[in-house]
Amino acid sequence: MALTVYDLAGARDDCRFSPYCWRVRLALAHKGLAAEFLPWRFTEKERLAFSGQGRVPVLVDGETVVSDSWAIMAYLDEAYPERPLFDTAQARAGALFLKFWTETVLQPALAPLVLNDVYGAIHEVDREYFRASREKAFGCRLEDLPGDAAARIAEVGRVLAPLRRALRTQPFLGGEAPSGADFLPYGAFQWAAVVSGTTFLAPDDPIAAWRQRVADWYGDALLIR
Amino acid sequence: MALTVYDLAGARDDCRFSPYCWRVRLALAHKGLAAEFLPWRFTEKERLAFSGQGRVPVLVDGETVVSDSWAIMAYLDEAYPERPLFDTAQARAGALFLKFWTETVLQPALAPLVLNDVYGAIHEVDREYFRASREKAFGCRLEDLPGDAAARIAEVGRVLAPLRRALRTQPFLGGEAPSGADFLPYGAFQWAAVVSGTTFLAPDDPIAAWRQRVADWYGDALLIR
Repeated sequence: MALTVYDLAGARDDCRFSPYCWRVRLALAHKGLAAEFLPWRFTEKERLAFSGQGRVPVLVDGETVVSDSWAIMAYLDEAYPERPLFDTAQARAGALFLKFWTETVLQPALAPLVLNDVYGAIHEVDREYFRASREKAFGCRLEDLPGDAAARIAEVGRVLAPLRRALRTQPFLGGEAPSGADFLPYGAFQWAAVVSGTTFLAPDDPIAAWRQRVADWYGDALLIR
Repeated sequence: MALTVYDLAGARDDCRFSPYCWRVRLALAHKGLAAEFLPWRFTEKERLAFSGQGRVPVLVDGETVVSDSWAIMAYLDEAYPERPLFDTAQARAGALFLKFWTETVLQPALAPLVLNDVYGAIHEVDREYFRASREKAFGCRLEDLPGDAAARIAEVGRVLAPLRRALRTQPFLGGEAPSGADFLPYGAFQWAAVVSGTTFLAPDDPIAAWRQRVADWYGDALLIR
């Protein structure tokens, strides 16, 4: 049965920058499941009408439609229990804090560094929508996001302290091998890396080494095709 | 075999306020293991010489001596595998981020609110040591810690966002039942609660309800005897 994922794309079809869609790409790679990743733009709400909501990722597996990256990860572990993302309900529950930390602390810290690069990378049909929604969320024009580059990088470095400590102690958040926990912050870093040339990790940062370990672990399975 | 824990105490023997010792108390309660908790003061380094270091908690189990709360939790799961704190290696590895978040984000945010109350609660033999070590760590006198009460409470409220979101979604960090993950931030809240009357959680905060659920779950097993 072919799996299909609706996947946020920029102006170029191969620019896939959503941190939430990256979670699903990593989850499928982890399980060794092939899928077709359809490029989708923010304003193509009608293409998702079948899912009952308007955001990606959306996974279509035969008759089953699942939206929301966390729900998709749970669905995949239920429908395809081999190579689990989380090996017990407790391990999965324990990652929920990391999910919310990624969404309420890490991604907001990265946002001032990368939002203008996202704006530059998205399809022109999405620009008006993107600018209006992000400027409403941040309460200022994209050009007036707080801080200069150095201050923004320092803030990211500050909030990364607990992640750095964890990845100095063990190779992956999942321990000796990556688990679904790793995919949560990894998705956020991909969001930044895909659209932005900004470097905010020192080469000797344990987080940089971990990003390389994850990329090496999954290899070609993460390629945008 | 009787278990013994060297447990940080204040001027009163029944004032047990170390967030790290609370992790061990909770872990033993979780496993239904009885232990003797010996009151210990900061300056009684020689009483811990047998452990090869100078901090509590220290667990003594027959011939085995384990220091460091995280190592003690791992030891307990190995030596007493029933009612595991973490049900798999992956679940345990996944909690390491939460451990470091508790130590590098939550506890530092709570510190300006509670350090003077700790100072008021500790034994007089510890006062000079405590003041000197904390004033060195914070770079100011205990009386000059940053912020007024309102600003400190607001800062705690801000850093608690991801914990609040997780505990609004599920009853415990371990899911439907507490796991070792719950004990990490719970220890930090006990540190504050035992010495300080400061209220920093609104009554309807999901974190307040979770604290009550944890207390109810273990009941008398958490009593200081």
